[in-house]
Amino acid sequence: MKELEERILRDGIVEDGDVLKVDSFLNHQMDVELFRAMGKEWVRLFDGEGINKIFTIEASGIGIACVAALEFGVPVVFAKKSRTRNIAGEVYHTEVPSFTHGGVSDVIVSKRFLLPSDRLLLIDDFLANGAALEGLIGLAEQAGATVVGAGIAVEKAFQPGGERIRAKGVRVESLARIKSMTSGQLEFC
Amino acid sequence: MKELEERILRDGIVEDGDVLKVDSFLNHQMDVELFRAMGKEWVRLFDGEGINKIFTIEASGIGIACVAALEFGVPVVFAKKSRTRNIAGEVYHTEVPSFTHGGVSDVIVSKRFLLPSDRLLLIDDFLANGAALEGLIGLAEQAGATVVGAGIAVEKAFQPGGERIRAKGVRVESLARIKSMTSGQLEFC
Repeated sequence: MKELEERILRDGIVEDGDVLKVDSFLNHQMDVELFRAMGKEWVRLFDGEGINKIFTIEASGIGIACVAALEFGVPVVFAKKSRTRNIAGEVYHTEVPSFTHGGVSDVIVSKRFLLPSDRLLLIDDFLANGAALEGLIGLAEQAGATVVGAGIAVEKAFQPGGERIRAKGVRVESLARIKSMTSGQLEFC
Repeated sequence: MKELEERILRDGIVEDGDVLKVDSFLNHQMDVELFRAMGKEWVRLFDGEGINKIFTIEASGIGIACVAALEFGVPVVFAKKSRTRNIAGEVYHTEVPSFTHGGVSDVIVSKRFLLPSDRLLLIDDFLANGAALEGLIGLAEQAGATVVGAGIAVEKAFQPGGERIRAKGVRVESLARIKSMTSGQLEFC
């Protein structure tokens, strides 16, 4: 998606260790008009797929998911990073390794909000190693829901997540796919 | 706001210990069309106030803030509950006690995204003891930004937060104000 790629080139900051900072418009300060354009693009890409719910994970995916959901005309459910695991029976649970903070997060979603009849679009801001997205897929599987696909803002295509998720048969539509980031220079696929 | 009050009466669940669960439409599964109506109401209430940015705190405030921001035509900034405090110099920092989890969360926001020229609308899903909102006000004060007011979805008016925040001179517009919740019965102000 040209608009997102241009914005990344203009306002993104490439830092050491394959870090791309897009916090001025995507995941700290948030340009909701850009999110609306992204939502419209996913509506176009997933036209006719019968998506009835968007499923994301806190925190930075929530804003993009909610604005995209307005375009789809569907509700959002977000999986929570829980510090209290003892809600036995009421939630689906999985574990997601955190590369930012180290360690593992318990991630939960209420059983009431993921149903076997659901046709889900997963939304997240970044796809790199794929851990968060695999967590969402695992929760959807526990519920017997159908994952129609995943809408990602920025995919680091030089990291293994995208390939691994696509190898599971999940359709991934990333609006900007980064081929390489070297010495401050950024190239799209 | 009648639409929100009716929704709370229909789908909210009052539990022991003054707990109101609105997770089927507000803060776990999210009805973004309801959020749009809430955004329009805040636009009406804060008309002419020159709001140029919405400021919220992760996680459940983000969705409401982003949808409301579309109505205002402004960006969103969300304060992050940080596990890594060592970003000295680059962020404003405060501490917010957590009543859900116990203990205290470090809450940060990048100095780049809160400016002295900003006229902020604070947004959150709940106002009870007021700790989260006071944290946002504290961060705004550190930046020298102007807090125009706070837009809250659900205020528990029988808890002290709303009164304390208003006593600071901050305008608080809560779209549903709960007067009492006893034995499963709920009454609005």
